Amino acid sequence: MLYIIGLGLADERDVSVRGLEIIRKASRVYLEAYTAVLLADQRQLETYYGRSVILADREMVESQSDDILADADEKDIAFLVVGDPFSATTHTDLALRCRQHTPPIPTRTLPNASILTAVGATGLSLYSFGQTVSMVFFTQSWKPSSFYDRVAENVSLGLHTLVLLDIKVKEPDLQAMARGKIIYEPPRFMTVAQCASQMLEVEEERKQGICGKESLAVGVARLGSDDQAIVAGTLEELAQADLGKPLHSLVLCGKKMHEMEWEYVRGFAVDESKFDRIWKAHYGGM
Amino acid sequence: MLYIIGLGLADERDVSVRGLEIIRKASRVYLEAYTAVLLADQRQLETYYGRSVILADREMVESQSDDILADADEKDIAFLVVGDPFSATTHTDLALRCRQHTPPIPTRTLPNASILTAVGATGLSLYSFGQTVSMVFFTQSWKPSSFYDRVAENVSLGLHTLVLLDIKVKEPDLQAMARGKIIYEPPRFMTVAQCASQMLEVEEERKQGICGKESLAVGVARLGSDDQAIVAGTLEELAQADLGKPLHSLVLCGKKMHEMEWEYVRGFAVDESKFDRIWKAHYGGM
Repeated sequence: MLYIIGLGLADERDVSVRGLEIIRKASRVYLEAYTAVLLADQRQLETYYGRSVILADREMVESQSDDILADADEKDIAFLVVGDPFSATTHTDLALRCRQHTPPIPTRTLPNASILTAVGATGLSLYSFGQTVSMVFFTQSWKPSSFYDRVAENVSLGLHTLVLLDIKVKEPDLQAMARGKIIYEPPRFMTVAQCASQMLEVEEERKQGICGKESLAVGVARLGSDDQAIVAGTLEELAQADLGKPLHSLVLCGKKMHEMEWEYVRGFAVDESKFDRIWKAHYGGM
Repeated sequence: MLYIIGLGLADERDVSVRGLEIIRKASRVYLEAYTAVLLADQRQLETYYGRSVILADREMVESQSDDILADADEKDIAFLVVGDPFSATTHTDLALRCRQHTPPIPTRTLPNASILTAVGATGLSLYSFGQTVSMVFFTQSWKPSSFYDRVAENVSLGLHTLVLLDIKVKEPDLQAMARGKIIYEPPRFMTVAQCASQMLEVEEERKQGICGKESLAVGVARLGSDDQAIVAGTLEELAQADLGKPLHSLVLCGKKMHEMEWEYVRGFAVDESKFDRIWKAHYGGM
Protein backbone atom coordinates (compact mmCIF):
# COMPACT_ATOMS: atom_id res chain seq x y z
CA MET A 1 0.00 0.00 0.00
CA LEU A 2 1.22 3.48 -0.84
CA TYR A 3 0.07 5.96 1.80
CA ILE A 4 0.13 9.55 0.60
CA ILE A 5 0.08 11.49 3.84
CA GLY A 6 -0.52 15.21 4.24
CA LEU A 7 1.68 16.78 6.92
CA GLY A 8 -0.21 20.04 7.31
CA LEU A 9 1.43 23.42 7.19
CA ALA A 10 3.60 24.28 10.15
CA ASP A 11 5.67 21.67 11.94
CA GLU A 12 6.07 17.99 12.80
CA ARG A 13 3.05 17.93 15.11
CA ASP A 14 0.57 18.95 12.43
CA VAL A 15 0.43 15.42 11.07
CA SER A 16 -2.73 13.57 12.08
CA VAL A 17 -2.60 10.95 14.80
CA ARG A 18 -3.54 8.34 12.21
CA GLY A 19 -0.80 9.58 9.86
CA LEU A 20 1.83 9.39 12.57
CA GLU A 21 0.87 5.78 13.37
CA ILE A 22 1.30 4.82 9.70
CA ILE A 23 4.64 6.64 9.36
CA ARG A 24 6.06 4.86 12.39
CA LYS A 25 5.13 1.44 10.99
CA ALA A 26 5.89 1.93 7.27
CA SER A 27 8.73 0.07 5.52
CA ARG A 28 10.08 3.23 3.91
CA VAL A 29 9.24 6.91 4.41
CA TYR A 30 9.68 9.53 1.66
CA LEU A 31 9.31 13.27 2.03
CA GLU A 32 8.35 15.21 -1.09
CA ALA A 33 10.48 18.33 -0.89
CA TYR A 34 10.01 20.49 -3.93
CA THR A 35 6.44 21.75 -4.27
CA ALA A 36 6.31 23.12 -0.72
CA VAL A 37 8.40 23.12 2.44
CA LEU A 38 7.48 22.53 6.02
CA LEU A 39 8.66 24.94 8.71
CA ALA A 40 10.39 21.91 10.28
CA ASP A 41 13.42 20.36 8.57
CA GLN A 42 14.18 16.75 7.71
CA ARG A 43 16.24 16.19 10.88
CA GLN A 44 13.39 17.40 13.14
CA LEU A 45 10.97 15.08 11.36
CA GLU A 46 13.33 12.11 11.68
CA THR A 47 13.82 12.73 15.39
CA TYR A 48 10.09 13.09 15.93
CA TYR A 49 9.15 10.00 13.90
CA GLY A 50 12.06 7.99 15.28
CA ARG A 51 13.04 6.89 11.77
CA SER A 52 14.96 7.93 8.72
CA VAL A 53 13.23 9.85 5.99
CA ILE A 54 14.27 9.79 2.32
CA LEU A 55 14.10 13.21 0.63
CA ALA A 56 12.30 12.93 -2.70
CA ASP A 57 13.17 15.72 -5.11
CA ARG A 58 11.42 16.42 -8.39
CA GLU A 59 13.72 14.13 -10.35
CA MET A 60 13.12 11.17 -8.05
CA VAL A 61 9.32 11.56 -8.08
CA GLU A 62 8.99 12.19 -11.79
CA SER A 63 11.70 9.89 -13.20
CA GLN A 64 12.49 7.30 -10.55
CA SER A 65 9.06 6.57 -9.19
CA ASP A 66 9.74 2.84 -9.65
CA ASP A 67 12.19 3.05 -6.74
CA ILE A 68 9.57 4.70 -4.57
CA LEU A 69 6.94 2.12 -5.53
CA ALA A 70 9.22 -0.93 -5.21
CA ASP A 71 7.50 -3.68 -3.13
CA ALA A 72 4.56 -1.36 -2.48
CA ASP A 73 2.18 -4.15 -3.48
CA GLU A 74 3.45 -6.10 -0.43
CA LYS A 75 4.83 -3.50 1.96
CA ASP A 76 3.54 -0.22 3.35
CA ILE A 77 5.30 2.83 1.92
CA ALA A 78 4.64 6.32 3.30
CA PHE A 79 4.98 9.27 0.95
CA LEU A 80 4.79 12.51 2.93
CA VAL A 81 3.55 15.71 1.39
CA VAL A 82 3.63 19.15 2.98
CA GLY A 83 0.10 20.51 3.27
CA ASP A 84 -2.55 18.36 1.60
CA PRO A 85 -1.75 15.43 -0.73
CA PHE A 86 -3.77 16.89 -3.59
CA SER A 87 -2.43 20.42 -3.37
CA ALA A 88 -0.13 19.68 -6.32
CA THR A 89 -0.88 17.66 -9.45
CA THR A 90 2.34 15.68 -9.08
CA HIS A 91 0.71 13.58 -6.37
CA THR A 92 -2.31 12.72 -8.47
CA ASP A 93 0.22 11.61 -11.04
CA LEU A 94 1.88 9.29 -8.53
CA ALA A 95 -1.50 7.81 -7.56
CA LEU A 96 -2.25 7.26 -11.23
CA ARG A 97 1.02 5.36 -11.67
CA CYS A 98 0.01 3.10 -8.78
CA ARG A 99 -3.28 2.35 -10.47
CA GLN A 100 -1.54 1.52 -13.76
CA HIS A 101 1.18 -0.59 -12.09
CA THR A 102 1.33 -4.38 -12.64
CA PRO A 103 0.07 -5.58 -10.24
CA PRO A 104 -1.89 -2.44 -9.26
CA ILE A 105 -0.67 -0.86 -6.03
CA PRO A 106 -3.43 0.11 -3.63
CA THR A 107 -3.20 3.71 -2.39
CA ARG A 108 -4.68 5.50 0.57
CA THR A 109 -4.62 9.25 0.97
CA LEU A 110 -4.66 11.08 4.30
CA PRO A 111 -5.88 14.64 3.75
CA ASN A 112 -4.59 17.49 5.89
CA ALA A 113 -4.61 21.27 6.07
CA SER A 114 -3.77 23.09 2.87
CA ILE A 115 -2.94 26.68 2.09
CA LEU A 116 -6.09 26.59 -0.08
CA THR A 117 -8.25 26.48 3.05
CA ALA A 118 -5.89 27.82 5.75
CA VAL A 119 -6.22 31.13 3.92
CA GLY A 120 -9.67 31.30 5.54
CA ALA A 121 -7.78 32.70 8.55
CA THR A 122 -7.88 36.06 6.74
CA GLY A 123 -11.65 36.19 7.24
CA LEU A 124 -12.31 35.93 3.51
CA SER A 125 -14.99 33.36 2.71
CA LEU A 126 -13.56 30.21 1.18
CA TYR A 127 -16.77 29.83 -0.84
CA SER A 128 -16.03 33.06 -2.73
CA PHE A 129 -12.68 32.13 -4.23
CA GLY A 130 -12.28 31.59 -7.96
CA GLN A 131 -9.51 29.58 -9.59
CA THR A 132 -6.09 29.56 -7.95
CA VAL A 133 -3.09 30.99 -9.80
CA SER A 134 0.68 30.70 -9.42
CA MET A 135 3.21 33.51 -9.60
CA VAL A 136 6.74 32.71 -10.78
CA PHE A 137 9.87 34.78 -10.26
CA PHE A 138 10.19 37.29 -13.10
CA THR A 139 13.59 37.70 -14.75
CA GLN A 140 14.82 40.48 -17.02
CA SER A 141 13.70 38.58 -20.09
CA TRP A 142 10.92 36.33 -18.83
CA LYS A 143 7.80 37.84 -17.28
CA PRO A 144 5.00 35.37 -17.89
CA SER A 145 1.68 37.13 -17.41
CA SER A 146 -0.80 34.37 -18.14
CA PHE A 147 -1.86 34.61 -14.47
CA TYR A 148 -3.38 37.97 -15.36
CA ASP A 149 -6.03 36.46 -17.64
CA ARG A 150 -7.17 34.02 -15.00
CA VAL A 151 -7.22 36.70 -12.30
CA ALA A 152 -9.27 38.85 -14.71
CA GLU A 153 -11.81 36.02 -15.02
CA ASN A 154 -12.16 35.82 -11.24
CA VAL A 155 -12.37 39.60 -10.99
CA SER A 156 -15.17 39.65 -13.58
CA LEU A 157 -17.24 37.49 -11.20
CA GLY A 158 -16.25 39.46 -8.09
CA LEU A 159 -14.34 36.46 -6.70
CA HIS A 160 -11.18 36.36 -4.60
CA THR A 161 -8.00 34.90 -6.09
CA LEU A 162 -5.42 32.94 -4.14
CA VAL A 163 -1.96 33.50 -5.60
CA LEU A 164 0.59 30.80 -4.75
CA LEU A 165 4.15 32.06 -4.78
CA ASP A 166 7.15 30.53 -6.47
CA ILE A 167 9.59 28.31 -4.62
CA LYS A 168 13.02 27.49 -6.01
CA VAL A 169 14.50 24.47 -4.29
CA LYS A 170 17.47 22.55 -5.67
CA GLU A 171 17.63 24.60 -8.88
CA PRO A 172 20.83 23.91 -10.85
CA ASP A 173 23.20 26.88 -11.19
CA LEU A 174 23.24 27.30 -14.99
CA GLN A 175 26.56 29.15 -15.09
CA ALA A 176 28.28 26.41 -13.10
CA MET A 177 26.59 23.79 -15.29
CA ALA A 178 28.09 25.43 -18.37
CA ARG A 179 31.48 24.88 -16.76
CA GLY A 180 30.60 21.21 -16.30
CA LYS A 181 29.81 21.40 -12.58
CA ILE A 182 26.54 20.53 -10.89
CA ILE A 183 25.94 23.13 -8.21
CA TYR A 184 22.54 24.02 -6.80
CA GLU A 185 21.43 27.57 -6.14
CA PRO A 186 20.39 28.42 -2.57
CA PRO A 187 16.61 27.99 -2.04
CA ARG A 188 14.49 31.04 -2.80
CA PHE A 189 10.95 31.82 -1.74
CA MET A 190 8.87 34.62 -3.20
CA THR A 191 7.62 37.20 -0.72
CA VAL A 192 4.24 38.95 -0.61
CA ALA A 193 6.03 42.21 -1.51
CA GLN A 194 7.64 40.69 -4.62
CA CYS A 195 4.34 39.20 -5.73
CA ALA A 196 2.49 42.49 -5.28
CA SER A 197 5.23 44.33 -7.23
CA GLN A 198 5.04 41.85 -10.10
CA MET A 199 1.26 42.15 -10.22
CA LEU A 200 1.54 45.95 -10.39
CA GLU A 201 4.18 45.62 -13.12
CA VAL A 202 1.88 43.50 -15.29
CA GLU A 203 -1.10 45.79 -14.59
CA GLU A 204 1.06 48.71 -15.74
CA GLU A 205 1.45 46.92 -19.05
CA ARG A 206 -2.02 45.42 -19.56
CA LYS A 207 -4.03 48.29 -18.02
CA GLN A 208 -7.35 46.43 -17.59
CA GLY A 209 -7.79 47.54 -13.98
CA ILE A 210 -7.41 44.01 -12.62
CA CYS A 211 -4.65 44.45 -10.04
CA GLY A 212 -3.75 48.10 -9.70
CA LYS A 213 -2.27 50.19 -6.91
CA GLU A 214 -5.63 50.57 -5.14
CA SER A 215 -6.73 46.94 -5.45
CA LEU A 216 -7.30 45.40 -2.03
CA ALA A 217 -5.31 42.31 -1.14
CA VAL A 218 -4.23 40.26 1.85
CA GLY A 219 -0.74 38.87 2.36
CA VAL A 220 -0.21 35.82 4.58
CA ALA A 221 2.89 34.11 5.91
CA ARG A 222 3.51 30.88 7.84
CA LEU A 223 -0.23 30.17 8.19
CA GLY A 224 -1.04 27.59 10.82
CA SER A 225 2.13 28.24 12.85
CA ASP A 226 2.50 30.17 16.11
CA ASP A 227 3.98 33.18 14.34
CA GLN A 228 1.66 33.38 11.35
CA ALA A 229 1.35 36.85 9.86
CA ILE A 230 -1.58 38.43 8.01
CA VAL A 231 -1.40 41.90 6.46
CA ALA A 232 -4.19 43.56 4.47
CA GLY A 233 -3.96 46.63 2.28
CA THR A 234 -3.71 47.91 -1.25
CA LEU A 235 -1.31 46.16 -3.63
CA GLU A 236 0.82 49.29 -3.44
CA GLU A 237 1.02 48.94 0.36
CA LEU A 238 1.70 45.21 0.18
CA ALA A 239 4.55 45.83 -2.25
CA GLN A 240 6.27 47.49 0.75
CA ALA A 241 5.16 45.01 3.44
CA ASP A 242 7.61 42.71 5.21
CA LEU A 243 5.96 39.50 6.40
CA GLY A 244 9.20 37.84 7.47
CA LYS A 245 10.26 34.26 6.84
CA PRO A 246 8.64 31.96 4.21
CA LEU A 247 6.17 30.64 3.09
CA HIS A 248 4.11 33.54 1.80
CA SER A 249 0.90 33.68 -0.24
CA LEU A 250 -1.33 36.49 -1.41
CA VAL A 251 -5.05 36.89 -1.91
CA LEU A 252 -6.43 39.49 -4.30
CA CYS A 253 -9.85 40.46 -2.93
CA GLY A 254 -12.90 40.15 -5.13
CA LYS A 255 -15.39 42.99 -5.41
CA LYS A 256 -18.14 40.90 -3.88
CA MET A 257 -16.29 41.01 -0.54
CA HIS A 258 -19.13 40.87 1.95
CA GLU A 259 -19.54 43.18 4.93
CA MET A 260 -18.81 40.27 7.29
CA GLU A 261 -15.56 39.52 5.48
CA TRP A 262 -14.58 43.19 5.47
CA GLU A 263 -15.23 43.50 9.21
CA TYR A 264 -12.74 40.72 9.91
CA VAL A 265 -10.10 41.54 7.30
CA ARG A 266 -9.87 45.23 8.23
CA GLY A 267 -8.37 44.16 11.57
CA PHE A 268 -5.23 43.20 9.61
CA ALA A 269 -5.03 46.44 7.60
CA VAL A 270 -1.79 48.42 7.27
CA ASP A 271 -3.97 51.55 7.23
CA GLU A 272 -7.46 50.83 8.49
CA SER A 273 -9.14 54.07 7.37
CA LYS A 274 -7.72 53.80 3.87
CA PHE A 275 -8.82 50.17 3.70
CA ASP A 276 -12.34 51.15 4.80
CA ARG A 277 -12.53 54.02 2.34
CA ILE A 278 -11.57 51.87 -0.65
CA TRP A 279 -13.81 48.99 0.41
CA LYS A 280 -16.80 51.31 0.76
CA ALA A 281 -16.16 53.02 -2.57
CA HIS A 282 -15.36 50.01 -4.75
CA TYR A 283 -16.18 46.73 -2.99
CA GLY A 284 -18.94 45.31 -0.84
CA GLY A 285 -21.38 43.37 -2.88
CA MET A 286 -20.62 44.49 -6.41
CA MET B 1 -7.04 31.43 24.73
CA LEU B 2 -9.74 30.05 22.47
CA TYR B 3 -8.38 27.25 20.32
CA ILE B 4 -10.48 26.57 17.24
CA ILE B 5 -9.36 23.11 16.24
CA GLY B 6 -10.13 21.35 12.96
CA LEU B 7 -10.83 17.64 13.44
CA GLY B 8 -10.48 16.57 9.83
CA LEU B 9 -13.05 14.50 8.02
CA ALA B 10 -13.31 10.90 9.09
CA ASP B 11 -12.80 9.84 12.69
CA GLU B 12 -11.19 10.68 16.02
CA ARG B 13 -7.65 9.98 14.81
CA ASP B 14 -7.76 12.63 12.08
CA VAL B 15 -7.04 15.37 14.60
CA SER B 16 -3.44 16.61 14.49
CA VAL B 17 -1.00 15.54 17.17
CA ARG B 18 -0.77 19.17 18.28
CA GLY B 19 -4.57 19.46 18.38
CA LEU B 20 -4.90 16.35 20.51
CA GLU B 21 -2.38 17.71 23.03
CA ILE B 22 -4.38 20.93 23.37
CA ILE B 23 -7.71 19.11 23.72
CA ARG B 24 -6.35 16.90 26.49
CA LYS B 25 -5.16 19.95 28.48
CA ALA B 26 -7.99 22.43 27.83
CA SER B 27 -10.34 23.58 30.60
CA ARG B 28 -13.46 22.94 28.52
CA VAL B 29 -13.98 21.21 25.19
CA TYR B 30 -16.86 22.07 22.83
CA LEU B 31 -17.82 20.22 19.66
CA GLU B 32 -19.61 22.23 17.00
CA ALA B 33 -22.24 19.85 15.73
CA TYR B 34 -24.46 21.49 13.17
CA THR B 35 -22.52 22.58 10.07
CA ALA B 36 -20.95 19.14 9.56
CA VAL B 37 -20.70 15.80 11.29
CA LEU B 38 -17.79 13.52 11.91
CA LEU B 39 -18.06 9.83 11.13
CA ALA B 40 -17.30 9.28 14.84
CA ASP B 41 -19.88 10.19 17.47
CA GLN B 42 -19.54 12.22 20.65
CA ARG B 43 -19.03 9.14 22.83
CA GLN B 44 -16.15 7.87 20.69
CA LEU B 45 -14.47 11.26 20.85
CA GLU B 46 -14.87 11.45 24.62
CA THR B 47 -13.38 7.99 25.09
CA TYR B 48 -10.47 8.82 22.81
CA TYR B 49 -9.73 12.19 24.40
CA GLY B 50 -10.32 10.89 27.91
CA ARG B 51 -12.60 13.82 28.68
CA SER B 52 -16.11 15.07 28.37
CA VAL B 53 -17.15 17.07 25.35
CA ILE B 54 -19.94 19.65 25.32
CA LEU B 55 -22.08 19.54 22.16
CA ALA B 56 -22.53 23.04 20.77
CA ASP B 57 -25.59 23.39 18.58
CA ARG B 58 -26.44 26.40 16.43
CA GLU B 59 -28.34 28.12 19.21
CA MET B 60 -25.47 27.82 21.66
CA VAL B 61 -22.86 29.13 19.21
CA GLU B 62 -24.95 31.97 17.85
CA SER B 63 -26.84 33.11 20.96
CA GLN B 64 -24.91 31.84 23.96
CA SER B 65 -21.35 32.38 22.88
CA ASP B 66 -20.69 34.18 26.17
CA ASP B 67 -20.93 30.80 27.90
CA ILE B 68 -18.42 29.31 25.50
CA LEU B 69 -16.05 32.24 25.95
CA ALA B 70 -16.38 32.51 29.74
CA ASP B 71 -12.89 32.74 31.36
CA ALA B 72 -11.26 32.29 27.96
CA ASP B 73 -9.00 35.26 28.68
CA GLU B 74 -7.46 33.20 31.51
CA LYS B 75 -8.14 29.57 30.63
CA ASP B 76 -7.69 27.48 27.53
CA ILE B 77 -10.93 26.56 25.79
CA ALA B 78 -11.00 24.13 22.87
CA PHE B 79 -13.72 24.56 20.25
CA LEU B 80 -13.71 21.58 17.89
CA VAL B 81 -14.90 21.84 14.34
CA VAL B 82 -15.38 18.97 11.91
CA GLY B 83 -13.16 19.50 8.87
CA ASP B 84 -11.33 22.82 8.81
CA PRO B 85 -12.12 25.72 11.19
CA PHE B 86 -12.81 28.14 8.36
CA SER B 87 -15.01 25.84 6.32
CA ALA B 88 -18.07 27.66 7.68
CA THR B 89 -18.52 31.39 8.31
CA THR B 90 -19.91 30.73 11.77
CA HIS B 91 -16.38 30.14 13.03
CA THR B 92 -14.99 33.39 11.66
CA ASP B 93 -17.88 34.98 13.50
CA LEU B 94 -16.78 33.37 16.77
CA ALA B 95 -13.20 34.56 16.25
CA LEU B 96 -14.52 38.05 15.58
CA ARG B 97 -16.43 38.01 18.86
CA CYS B 98 -13.19 37.07 20.65
CA ARG B 99 -11.44 40.05 19.09
CA GLN B 100 -14.27 42.41 20.14
CA HIS B 101 -14.52 40.97 23.68
CA THR B 102 -13.47 43.07 26.71
CA PRO B 103 -10.73 42.16 27.41
CA PRO B 104 -9.95 40.70 23.95
CA ILE B 105 -9.64 36.91 23.95
CA PRO B 106 -6.63 35.60 22.06
CA THR B 107 -7.50 32.90 19.52
CA ARG B 108 -5.43 30.28 17.79
CA THR B 109 -6.67 28.22 14.87
CA LEU B 110 -5.48 24.74 13.98
CA PRO B 111 -6.26 24.05 10.33
CA ASN B 112 -7.09 20.55 9.15
CA ALA B 113 -8.42 18.69 6.13
CA SER B 114 -11.53 20.13 4.55
CA ILE B 115 -13.96 18.80 1.97
CA LEU B 116 -12.84 21.81 -0.12
CA THR B 117 -9.45 20.17 -0.68
CA ALA B 118 -10.16 16.48 0.06
CA VAL B 119 -12.24 16.57 -3.11
CA GLY B 120 -8.87 16.54 -4.91
CA ALA B 121 -9.09 12.75 -4.41
CA THR B 122 -11.32 12.72 -7.49
CA GLY B 123 -8.34 13.71 -9.63
CA LEU B 124 -9.85 17.08 -10.50
CA SER B 125 -7.36 19.90 -10.08
CA LEU B 126 -8.06 22.03 -7.02
CA TYR B 127 -6.70 25.06 -8.89
CA SER B 128 -9.54 24.83 -11.43
CA PHE B 129 -12.49 25.15 -9.07
CA GLY B 130 -14.66 28.26 -9.10
CA GLN B 131 -16.83 29.42 -6.23
CA THR B 132 -18.42 26.80 -3.96
CA VAL B 133 -22.20 26.48 -3.78
CA SER B 134 -24.63 24.86 -1.36
CA MET B 135 -27.66 22.78 -2.21
CA VAL B 136 -30.61 22.75 0.19
CA PHE B 137 -33.40 20.19 0.38
CA PHE B 138 -36.20 21.22 -1.98
CA THR B 139 -39.75 21.07 -0.68
CA GLN B 140 -43.01 21.15 -2.62
CA SER B 141 -43.19 24.92 -2.30
CA TRP B 142 -39.55 25.98 -1.84
CA LYS B 143 -37.01 25.26 -4.53
CA PRO B 144 -34.35 27.94 -4.24
CA SER B 145 -32.34 28.02 -7.45
CA SER B 146 -29.86 30.80 -6.75
CA PHE B 147 -27.11 28.15 -6.87
CA TYR B 148 -27.81 27.91 -10.60
CA ASP B 149 -26.57 31.46 -11.29
CA ARG B 150 -23.30 30.89 -9.49
CA VAL B 151 -22.78 27.52 -11.18
CA ALA B 152 -23.45 29.26 -14.50
CA GLU B 153 -20.69 31.76 -13.70
CA ASN B 154 -18.22 28.95 -13.04
CA VAL B 155 -19.38 27.12 -16.17
CA SER B 156 -18.80 30.26 -18.26
CA LEU B 157 -15.12 30.11 -17.24
CA GLY B 158 -14.86 26.34 -17.70
CA LEU B 159 -14.31 25.82 -13.94
CA HIS B 160 -15.41 22.98 -11.69
CA THR B 161 -18.03 23.61 -9.00
CA LEU B 162 -18.06 21.94 -5.61
CA VAL B 163 -21.62 21.54 -4.38
CA LEU B 164 -21.97 21.11 -0.63
CA LEU B 165 -25.09 19.19 0.36
CA ASP B 166 -27.64 20.11 2.98
CA ILE B 167 -27.53 18.69 6.48
CA LYS B 168 -30.50 18.87 8.82
CA VAL B 169 -29.47 18.29 12.40
CA LYS B 170 -31.68 19.12 15.37
CA GLU B 171 -34.39 20.71 13.24
CA PRO B 172 -37.58 21.35 15.24
CA ASP B 173 -40.63 19.38 14.13
CA LEU B 174 -43.00 22.20 13.14
CA GLN B 175 -46.18 20.13 13.49
CA ALA B 176 -45.24 19.13 17.03
CA MET B 177 -44.27 22.71 17.80
CA ALA B 178 -47.74 23.84 16.75
CA ARG B 179 -49.09 21.47 19.40
CA GLY B 180 -46.79 23.11 21.96
CA LYS B 181 -44.17 20.36 22.01
CA ILE B 182 -40.50 20.68 21.18
CA ILE B 183 -39.54 17.60 19.22
CA TYR B 184 -36.59 17.39 16.86
CA GLU B 185 -36.75 15.69 13.50
CA PRO B 186 -34.30 12.85 12.87
CA PRO B 187 -31.09 14.07 11.17
CA ARG B 188 -31.15 14.12 7.36
CA PHE B 189 -28.23 14.25 4.94
CA MET B 190 -28.63 14.96 1.25
CA THR B 191 -27.30 12.28 -1.08
CA VAL B 192 -25.44 12.70 -4.36
CA ALA B 193 -28.50 11.26 -6.14
CA GLN B 194 -30.84 13.83 -4.59
CA CYS B 195 -28.49 16.67 -5.45
CA ALA B 196 -28.14 15.51 -9.06
CA SER B 197 -31.95 15.21 -9.36
CA GLN B 198 -32.48 18.70 -8.00
CA MET B 199 -29.89 20.13 -10.39
CA LEU B 200 -31.65 18.43 -13.31
CA GLU B 201 -34.99 19.76 -12.06
CA VAL B 202 -33.72 23.35 -12.07
CA GLU B 203 -32.03 22.89 -15.46
CA GLU B 204 -35.37 21.67 -16.80
CA GLU B 205 -36.84 25.00 -15.75
CA ARG B 206 -34.01 27.41 -16.60
CA LYS B 207 -32.77 25.65 -19.77
CA GLN B 208 -29.39 27.42 -20.04
CA GLY B 209 -27.46 24.19 -20.52
CA ILE B 210 -25.64 24.53 -17.21
CA CYS B 211 -26.37 21.20 -15.54
CA GLY B 212 -28.22 18.94 -17.90
CA LYS B 213 -28.54 15.17 -18.24
CA GLU B 214 -25.23 14.85 -20.12
CA SER B 215 -23.21 17.18 -17.86
CA LEU B 216 -20.27 15.33 -16.31
CA ALA B 217 -20.04 15.25 -12.54
CA VAL B 218 -18.36 13.35 -9.73
CA GLY B 219 -20.09 12.26 -6.55
CA VAL B 220 -18.06 11.65 -3.39
CA ALA B 221 -18.92 10.15 -0.01
CA ARG B 222 -17.04 9.82 3.28
CA LEU B 223 -13.84 11.29 1.82
CA GLY B 224 -10.77 10.65 3.92
CA SER B 225 -12.20 7.52 5.55
CA ASP B 226 -11.39 3.89 4.82
CA ASP B 227 -14.61 3.37 2.92
CA GLN B 228 -14.67 6.58 0.89
CA ALA B 229 -16.62 6.32 -2.37
CA ILE B 230 -16.13 8.21 -5.62
CA VAL B 231 -18.46 7.82 -8.62
CA ALA B 232 -18.17 9.73 -11.89
CA GLY B 233 -20.76 10.02 -14.61
CA THR B 234 -23.40 12.20 -16.16
CA LEU B 235 -25.83 13.98 -13.85
CA GLU B 236 -28.48 11.58 -15.14
CA GLU B 237 -26.35 8.62 -14.05
CA LEU B 238 -25.52 10.19 -10.69
CA ALA B 239 -29.22 10.77 -10.03
CA GLN B 240 -29.40 6.95 -9.84
CA ALA B 241 -26.15 6.34 -7.97
CA ASP B 242 -26.05 5.01 -4.41
CA LEU B 243 -22.95 6.13 -2.53
CA GLY B 244 -24.09 4.80 0.83
CA LYS B 245 -23.84 6.52 4.18
CA PRO B 246 -23.26 10.29 4.65
CA LEU B 247 -21.58 12.70 4.10
CA HIS B 248 -21.92 13.23 0.37
CA SER B 249 -20.77 16.05 -1.91
CA LEU B 250 -20.88 16.57 -5.66
CA VAL B 251 -18.59 18.23 -8.18
CA LEU B 252 -19.92 19.50 -11.48
CA CYS B 253 -17.02 19.26 -13.94
CA GLY B 254 -15.90 22.36 -15.82
CA LYS B 255 -15.32 22.24 -19.57
CA LYS B 256 -11.64 23.02 -19.14
CA MET B 257 -11.16 19.56 -17.57
CA HIS B 258 -7.63 18.70 -18.59
CA GLU B 259 -6.54 15.42 -20.13
CA MET B 260 -4.61 14.56 -16.94
CA GLU B 261 -7.74 15.12 -14.85
CA TRP B 262 -9.87 13.07 -17.24
CA GLU B 263 -7.38 10.19 -17.17
CA TYR B 264 -7.75 9.93 -13.40
CA VAL B 265 -11.47 10.64 -13.06
CA ARG B 266 -12.54 8.14 -15.73
CA GLY B 267 -11.34 5.37 -13.41
CA PHE B 268 -14.38 6.16 -11.23
CA ALA B 269 -16.90 6.24 -14.09
CA VAL B 270 -20.20 4.36 -13.93
CA ASP B 271 -19.86 3.81 -17.69
CA GLU B 272 -16.30 4.46 -18.85
CA SER B 273 -16.93 4.54 -22.59
CA LYS B 274 -19.85 6.94 -22.22
CA PHE B 275 -17.76 9.14 -19.96
CA ASP B 276 -14.93 9.17 -22.52
CA ARG B 277 -17.28 9.92 -25.40
CA ILE B 278 -18.85 12.93 -23.69
CA TRP B 279 -15.51 14.23 -22.42
CA LYS B 280 -14.00 14.06 -25.90
CA ALA B 281 -16.99 15.73 -27.53
CA HIS B 282 -17.66 18.54 -25.07
CA TYR B 283 -14.81 18.90 -22.55
CA GLY B 284 -11.03 18.86 -22.58
CA GLY B 285 -9.66 22.33 -22.80
CA MET B 286 -12.69 24.35 -23.91
